Amino acid sequence: MTLRQRLNIIIFGTDTPAGRTFDVVLLVIILLSIVTVMLESVPSLQQNYGNYFRWVEGALTIIFTLEYITRVWVTENSKKYIFSFYGIIDLLSILPSYLSLIFVGTQYLLIIRALRLLRVFRILKLGRFVGEGEQLGRAIKASRHKITVFMGTVLATVIIMGTVMYLVEGRANGFTSIPRSVYWAIVTLTTVGYGDIAPQTIIGQSLASFVMILGYAIIAVPTGIVTVELQKEKKEAEDKIKCSKCELAGHSADANYCRRCGEKLRP
Amino acid sequence: MTLRQRLNIIIFGTDTPAGRTFDVVLLVIILLSIVTVMLESVPSLQQNYGNYFRWVEGALTIIFTLEYITRVWVTENSKKYIFSFYGIIDLLSILPSYLSLIFVGTQYLLIIRALRLLRVFRILKLGRFVGEGEQLGRAIKASRHKITVFMGTVLATVIIMGTVMYLVEGRANGFTSIPRSVYWAIVTLTTVGYGDIAPQTIIGQSLASFVMILGYAIIAVPTGIVTVELQKEKKEAEDKIKCSKCELAGHSADANYCRRCGEKLRP
Amino acid sequence: MTLRQRLNIIIFGTDTPAGRTFDVVLLVIILLSIVTVMLESVPSLQQNYGNYFRWVEGALTIIFTLEYITRVWVTENSKKYIFSFYGIIDLLSILPSYLSLIFVGTQYLLIIRALRLLRVFRILKLGRFVGEGEQLGRAIKASRHKITVFMGTVLATVIIMGTVMYLVEGRANGFTSIPRSVYWAIVTLTTVGYGDIAPQTIIGQSLASFVMILGYAIIAVPTGIVTVELQKEKKEAEDKIKCSKCELAGHSADANYCRRCGEKLRP
Amino acid sequence: MTLRQRLNIIIFGTDTPAGRTFDVVLLVIILLSIVTVMLESVPSLQQNYGNYFRWVEGALTIIFTLEYITRVWVTENSKKYIFSFYGIIDLLSILPSYLSLIFVGTQYLLIIRALRLLRVFRILKLGRFVGEGEQLGRAIKASRHKITVFMGTVLATVIIMGTVMYLVEGRANGFTSIPRSVYWAIVTLTTVGYGDIAPQTIIGQSLASFVMILGYAIIAVPTGIVTVELQKEKKEAEDKIKCSKCELAGHSADANYCRRCGEKLRP
Repeated sequence: MTLRQRLNIIIFGTDTPAGRTFDVVLLVIILLSIVTVMLESVPSLQQNYGNYFRWVEGALTIIFTLEYITRVWVTENSKKYIFSFYGIIDLLSILPSYLSLIFVGTQYLLIIRALRLLRVFRILKLGRFVGEGEQLGRAIKASRHKITVFMGTVLATVIIMGTVMYLVEGRANGFTSIPRSVYWAIVTLTTVGYGDIAPQTIIGQSLASFVMILGYAIIAVPTGIVTVELQKEKKEAEDKIKCSKCELAGHSADANYCRRCGEKLRP
Repeated sequence: MTLRQRLNIIIFGTDTPAGRTFDVVLLVIILLSIVTVMLESVPSLQQNYGNYFRWVEGALTIIFTLEYITRVWVTENSKKYIFSFYGIIDLLSILPSYLSLIFVGTQYLLIIRALRLLRVFRILKLGRFVGEGEQLGRAIKASRHKITVFMGTVLATVIIMGTVMYLVEGRANGFTSIPRSVYWAIVTLTTVGYGDIAPQTIIGQSLASFVMILGYAIIAVPTGIVTVELQKEKKEAEDKIKCSKCELAGHSADANYCRRCGEKLRP
Repeated sequence: MTLRQRLNIIIFGTDTPAGRTFDVVLLVIILLSIVTVMLESVPSLQQNYGNYFRWVEGALTIIFTLEYITRVWVTENSKKYIFSFYGIIDLLSILPSYLSLIFVGTQYLLIIRALRLLRVFRILKLGRFVGEGEQLGRAIKASRHKITVFMGTVLATVIIMGTVMYLVEGRANGFTSIPRSVYWAIVTLTTVGYGDIAPQTIIGQSLASFVMILGYAIIAVPTGIVTVELQKEKKEAEDKIKCSKCELAGHSADANYCRRCGEKLRP
Repeated sequence: MTLRQRLNIIIFGTDTPAGRTFDVVLLVIILLSIVTVMLESVPSLQQNYGNYFRWVEGALTIIFTLEYITRVWVTENSKKYIFSFYGIIDLLSILPSYLSLIFVGTQYLLIIRALRLLRVFRILKLGRFVGEGEQLGRAIKASRHKITVFMGTVLATVIIMGTVMYLVEGRANGFTSIPRSVYWAIVTLTTVGYGDIAPQTIIGQSLASFVMILGYAIIAVPTGIVTVELQKEKKEAEDKIKCSKCELAGHSADANYCRRCGEKLRP
């Protein structure tokens, strides 16, 4: 095997011990870079350790750049990788540092550096999480129509309730405009309840009580929607598992051996 | 086809491309009118752009009036449309603007303008959302008895807990009357927790802890009720899908082809 | 039929129109008495309308006393009624008013008057609510072991987390004692979040984040427990419905006619 | 039977009346010790009753020490007990009191004394709770992969949203650093909503609304995951119950008699 092929297996592959080790090491470095970005924003730490942060940032950028260049060189279809979801994320991981050399002092590159976080989703390629994560994804995808109807009803409700509260409470009590009242309605319906705006009049508190009980109860709806789809996905996934020896379809998700012939499943 | 029939298909129908385009355009205009109402209430925007808002409001009123008149003229049974749910909403969409010419400066017409929001539910007539939305509606309707028993118990609980807290904490600690204490109980049981009223005594905080844990746990009940009904609705809906060729009943909600004979379902 | 038998059917029975009318009228009077108790506690209303409240209170007490005496006289087994759940509630409804003539000015009788609220549960004897309410009750009863294990774990968690926060944050930051810290843990785990006590240190906020995410996630457990039991109850209830003509067991809860022979179910 | 064997049955066994009485008495003493620790932290009580607390603490330590020594002596395999979960907890229950004689005035031993709370889990050995608790445990264990994917997504979301809010709101509005903004995101997503930090700008409040609705809706996911696994566990547990006489497998969890031959299950 050429160096290129060997590196391909290590970097993109997840089946070999070397491949898995690479993934874990990469994950650790990614988490380190995220922590660095977070700590850099703390004023006291920025004052005392600003230089160290810049050194670490520089080293990380070099490491990620080398990694990116290697990936582009090593993969079978460079163009496909560069424009894939992970490819774009990887590029955005290193871009801010270079841009900040040109555009000095811009904070907005911080959010792009935070996108490094999405690289953490590489963990989903590790064995067991693939199947489970996809099951979850398919269940949520199958629920999307009912969830949309639900969300639309929620939005319509908060806008109407917000408008009513604006009329009832008025500007003196903190409800200074309809958008702000709608913000209050969202804070209350989702049961977050900051308390920065709260109704003062009797009618207002009665209406607010209605919004609270409504928000408290209708959480049942999306939960029911998702639960029903998850059940269906789980059943379909278990029916799919097929024994290679006796061809019995339908095994538990946590089964390791075929219950009929004893053959090991998923060698 | 006469002009009347052609307009009928465009305005009321959802099967043709023209009909769907009309629905989408209408939806955009409706959303625009809602945003206008919301922004008009913001004091700073009202000062600077008041005139523009009045122009937009006038144009929208004319558009909706023309649309309403066309609907009444074009539909088969005018009387049936005027008194239907959507018909009344459509009328209420244009009424406030005319009323505000007569009753100058009244804010209460705002809420009627906000009812334009309900026009957004026309989106439910778009294909996929009909079936899913109706399934959701039937499931909630089937749960109504258990939900009523649940809600009754919740109301009884908040009134009793509110009264007890009124006696325990007293007026000095913010619990100035039983209604206000019941309001606190609702804020706490639904886990909103504004913090505008909070118990100060040890006994009060212990009772409050009980209310919080109760509210936290009993959310399981309506969720369970709705989930069970949704499962039943989904099963019934899937059993209903029948292949036109081989007459096999019972296909997945997302199935496009009959699994037995391969015929396309729902042509 | 004697007067006694006729009154028995009206007061205790729910099948005849007269019986149902009596129940509805009684319910309205009960709700009126509850509203009266609530409004009496509002200082401004007490000042202005105190006399009217006393008159209404007096009239209600006489009505409930007459009703109670009639029930005791009319029912088949007086002793059984007096000591039953509803019998005791009915007695407690009228007792406070008499006691307040003896012990003037005591507020604590308020809570006993609030117990009138429990009379509202007579509504559960109305047709449809019986079966559904009992289904709900049985499902919750069947889950009681798992719910106890869950609640025990929650209590253990809040006490441990409360103690840790007490050590980490200390008295200066509002965590003045372990009980108060446990109160904070309950407020946070149940996601109520008053904000009257909130962690100030970095470690404290990290621990608090852990408590919040934990509380947010473990709500899934009691919900799952109750949902599973409700499904079982619903299935058992539907299997029980038996057609009187063709004896087919197992009909939908909302079925009115036997699907096999067309006979009306539950005449 | 020797004294050692008799004590073994009482202390470790749960089948005999003596064994169960011992467990209950022990539980009461454990709860008493926890309450003592909690009350000791209240400043007013510490001042007035400090001596009494020290006496009670001393007595409890002696009781628990005697109990621990007896357990080690009485159990079949001393080494196995000492290093088991319960063995270590029991040791940690008495250690702080001895350490506090050496290291005077250290508060950190409080948390170890709070670990006495874990002794409360001995209650799980009482009959019915074993099966139900284990069912719960297995269901949660089976969901761990999907829950991990979910938690990972939640963490990624709060870090990204926190970073965005830090950029949007800025230090002037309370969002003084990225870690603090992430703390706000967790407080909001979990719908706790202290209100100690809240967005002030329009964009900030819009983003916050998105976070709130997201947190409100995605609670459906872990709930669905756990519900599906609980259903599977319950079904498997019911299939396991086998009649000793006619060997019929599959009885309800609350069944006492075999439905086919009438034999008493679980004698």
